Amino acid sequence: MSDVAVIGGTGHQGLGLALRWAAAGLDVVIGSRDEGRAQNAAESARVRLAGIKPDARVGGAVNAAAAAGAPIVVLCVPLAAQAETLRGIKDHLPDDALLVDVTVPLAASLGIRGGRLLGLPAGSAAEQAAELVPPASRVVAAFHLLAAEALQDLEHEVDCDAIVCGEKSARERVRPLAESIPGVRYVDGGPLYNAHLVEACAGLVIGMNGRYKVQRAGLRITGLP
Amino acid sequence: MSDVAVIGGTGHQGLGLALRWAAAGLDVVIGSRDEGRAQNAAESARVRLAGIKPDARVGGAVNAAAAAGAPIVVLCVPLAAQAETLRGIKDHLPDDALLVDVTVPLAASLGIRGGRLLGLPAGSAAEQAAELVPPASRVVAAFHLLAAEALQDLEHEVDCDAIVCGEKSARERVRPLAESIPGVRYVDGGPLYNAHLVEACAGLVIGMNGRYKVQRAGLRITGLP
Repeated sequence: MSDVAVIGGTGHQGLGLALRWAAAGLDVVIGSRDEGRAQNAAESARVRLAGIKPDARVGGAVNAAAAAGAPIVVLCVPLAAQAETLRGIKDHLPDDALLVDVTVPLAASLGIRGGRLLGLPAGSAAEQAAELVPPASRVVAAFHLLAAEALQDLEHEVDCDAIVCGEKSARERVRPLAESIPGVRYVDGGPLYNAHLVEACAGLVIGMNGRYKVQRAGLRITGLP
Repeated sequence: MSDVAVIGGTGHQGLGLALRWAAAGLDVVIGSRDEGRAQNAAESARVRLAGIKPDARVGGAVNAAAAAGAPIVVLCVPLAAQAETLRGIKDHLPDDALLVDVTVPLAASLGIRGGRLLGLPAGSAAEQAAELVPPASRVVAAFHLLAAEALQDLEHEVDCDAIVCGEKSARERVRPLAESIPGVRYVDGGPLYNAHLVEACAGLVIGMNGRYKVQRAGLRITGLP
């Protein structure tokens, strides 16, 4: 078993998360629809980590195999691919699997400009994910706010909070993943039904990149103990 | 003419904004449905400002009169009072009035717990406000994220961004209000149709107070120039 699977780990943000977790010593598997692409991404991750973490463990596998081989499965795909991807992995998830949904339901997935969010019938992308996996699976929403550019820049800390929504016991399983990324603070976002709030924050933050011509806008909650 | 009217300025957050703007030297009028309550709030504001800004200008008036007497009208009422309040002031707004909507459409206004947000038919509370005022009025969304407790604590800076959504020229009229509050940074939130994103962020931030047992959770966008 790996420690964590990143489904959509060949994408810009997914690869960034995979790099950070591998750099922190976790055994990471990158999932893709195409096994060759997954293995290429894993190979390039190992090359990039060679100078930092020579014993980094990053493998690649087709999505279903990646999901089957990790207790925590991070879903990092565009909204338009979310349902199909989950249908492809749901029968392969370990019994006590924890699914971490990172989907931001941008209206851009329907060609609507402006960084606005879709209103989803389940209430949020994460709750939609929860409807698509077996009832025994736990689902949390997390990591939406972490910019791909910041994650991939392994020389610098990520100046951003990870606001995590879900059941307490599930959230606590995600905390070490958040805290293993330098600069990232774990923040309790409350129950999964709060995921729409965090997804909206992510939409706002993503839009900042365009308005301010930057690439790593993030977010900090202030005033916490 | 005053510089700014705070409709709902007898409430906790509205009074906090009024105090900060008066402390910064602006001529502020507090609006309330009840003129006596408005004048009492103004009097108590002057007392609190006496040691900091002896020449502070804070008056009180019934909502319609307050709105008629200021080029910028800040609407700081609960969602359930938003429509009725706007209907009461819309015929009194100056021709080039700028309405600043601070409403957070918490589902709590319908007795739904958990800090979730209502989906409003206009897309956001601010766009709902825009539908309720004369077409010539400009509407921006701003100041949702600033905690009442932090605003009212005049001895300390407010550790929070003011994310402002609306047309550029309207946003720029709000910038000085944001920047007059020590600690607050003006952040461009894009067009008014982004207001749902900022309102959701505010819902998330408000919920942090309960989860972390604090009273002045706020938010900073990171990674901006």
